[in-house]
Amino acid sequence: MSRFLSRNTRELIPYVPGEQPKDKVFVKLNTNENPYPPSPLVMERIRNFDLGDLRLYPNNEGAIVKQAVSKYYGISADEVFVGNGSDEVLAFIFKAFFDETEKIGFPDITYSFYPVYCALFNIPYVKVPVADDFSIDLSLYPEDLKGIIFANPNAPTGIYIAPSRIEELLKSRPDTLVIVDEAYIDFGGESCAGLIRMYDNLIIVQTLSKSRSLAGMRVGFAMGCKELMDGLARIKDSFNSYPLDKIAQIAAEAAFIDTEYFNETRQKIINTRQWTQEKLLSLGIQVTDSKANFLFVKIPEVPGPEALTKLRQEGILVRHFNSPRICDWLRITIGTQEQMEILVEKIKKIMEG
Amino acid sequence: MSRFLSRNTRELIPYVPGEQPKDKVFVKLNTNENPYPPSPLVMERIRNFDLGDLRLYPNNEGAIVKQAVSKYYGISADEVFVGNGSDEVLAFIFKAFFDETEKIGFPDITYSFYPVYCALFNIPYVKVPVADDFSIDLSLYPEDLKGIIFANPNAPTGIYIAPSRIEELLKSRPDTLVIVDEAYIDFGGESCAGLIRMYDNLIIVQTLSKSRSLAGMRVGFAMGCKELMDGLARIKDSFNSYPLDKIAQIAAEAAFIDTEYFNETRQKIINTRQWTQEKLLSLGIQVTDSKANFLFVKIPEVPGPEALTKLRQEGILVRHFNSPRICDWLRITIGTQEQMEILVEKIKKIMEG
Repeated sequence: MSRFLSRNTRELIPYVPGEQPKDKVFVKLNTNENPYPPSPLVMERIRNFDLGDLRLYPNNEGAIVKQAVSKYYGISADEVFVGNGSDEVLAFIFKAFFDETEKIGFPDITYSFYPVYCALFNIPYVKVPVADDFSIDLSLYPEDLKGIIFANPNAPTGIYIAPSRIEELLKSRPDTLVIVDEAYIDFGGESCAGLIRMYDNLIIVQTLSKSRSLAGMRVGFAMGCKELMDGLARIKDSFNSYPLDKIAQIAAEAAFIDTEYFNETRQKIINTRQWTQEKLLSLGIQVTDSKANFLFVKIPEVPGPEALTKLRQEGILVRHFNSPRICDWLRITIGTQEQMEILVEKIKKIMEG
Repeated sequence: MSRFLSRNTRELIPYVPGEQPKDKVFVKLNTNENPYPPSPLVMERIRNFDLGDLRLYPNNEGAIVKQAVSKYYGISADEVFVGNGSDEVLAFIFKAFFDETEKIGFPDITYSFYPVYCALFNIPYVKVPVADDFSIDLSLYPEDLKGIIFANPNAPTGIYIAPSRIEELLKSRPDTLVIVDEAYIDFGGESCAGLIRMYDNLIIVQTLSKSRSLAGMRVGFAMGCKELMDGLARIKDSFNSYPLDKIAQIAAEAAFIDTEYFNETRQKIINTRQWTQEKLLSLGIQVTDSKANFLFVKIPEVPGPEALTKLRQEGILVRHFNSPRICDWLRITIGTQEQMEILVEKIKKIMEG
């Protein structure tokens, strides 16, 4: 390590994203990408874009994306904040609202980037254990937290909480900022977007990487009252004025306009998830009731690391988390129907030893 | 302001980028964009890109961009770090190497984002005044600084320091991290890239927004010894795993491959700068010896804010900084020869009252 690193930088344990293999020989079910390409309208808009315009800076706040999101959710454009993927949006949220003076809380099993942001910005936190069935009981969170963040559906379990239960939390903790990370909400859950006008302590985060097939384009956004979104803009404008390039902005706008393709592809993924879930259950495999574009599964009598390795040998990449409570579980992205049929066959083979 | 903002967020005074007008009626000389489109190879590569691949995450470190930069500068790929524009790269540098415990230094007149990063990350700093002719005397910087950062050529003055003088600083201050922001180096200066193997206290920052006509695509990079670049990667991977989308990566790679177009367009800009400089000097206007793609000018007897307004009325956008020592100066981007001829005419008109 360079002697110039600050103490904080030395101590960081960065987030490790799922592997992006250089060749395409694998059935890639490890990073929750969409098996279907972006909408034809997205492709058309990119193809028609005047590439000479790339010499000019993009709009610095992603205005056309804010417009498209606000239209989709029936909110105002100043109730939307756009960033370079939902990871950047989350980073801005942690920096804008939290610091070393007050604790925040999140589930012990959830998106593993949250504790990394806390380490980066010196934010103290408590992990609140989820139940043995991985469900989240929001009433268990300490009263004095400055913020509470969780993914809904949760990652990597897929377990979903209805907005009515989140509303109880918002109502009972008006001085706690509640962040609902809805990266996977479009695969069968209901967004809390309808609550942002009633609660000034709510921020919702979404991404275009999963349900809108744009992982390669890096667009995420937050929704919340104007004052909260202004707070995020203060951080962005003190960090990087232009995080979204021109092509990402037109692609994101088009993805929101083409609701027909969006509904068609997400329904296909939901159907494939149900098929896969039933198949795996019939094999005696433990599968959570996931409302996301992945399943969380435990193969009886096959330890997690071994299942991971064997599936890889069979040409299938899935995700394993080296964390005590879930070390025998695998997170498996929902691919195409054909990919999931291969997966089921390979899991059968592994179980037969 | 939302009551949830942290104290630091409340106190920030964000950077304000130059205006991006929605219509194209202006001669736009206010944000140092390149008047020429990106290289034909950039456009060809984007057009041939398989848009279906946007469903997948990009390479998380911009590997093809690192390769292209390393090839261009004759260094190793692990001596390069790639980010979402040089502003993001600078933000990562401030966060990775500096904190509240030690001071850094920069010129009183330089890129105005540096003090904003310091406020964002609680880094104390001293501003060291440039001379009356705007030149930087590196020997004036206090001995005990943890870091020194300046733009070379400097912004918004265009004044350039030769690498030999920077090398003296590197040699005499082995425990000070020196950051040379070379956003404008390709317009007549010589990069310090050749020094990174000799000095482990040097980081160079560059952007593809100016000399490579890709402001709309958001790509910047740093060069330095592997240990320093690893430090930047620690911050990036604790902030946002994938800051560069797939199209930005192939565009950046192509911009480095097509050296012929690059050399041709930057030479055109240098020629136009020389022509404009001479014309303005012949009108009795003060013009610095700029080695950047902009001029820094003072029109006699016309206060800066007035000159800004009058040029705007004449359809020309330029940049003015509301800072005491330079409040009568304007930063004017070098556009096409035709645009600069219009500029000269309009300035003449303003001087004639």
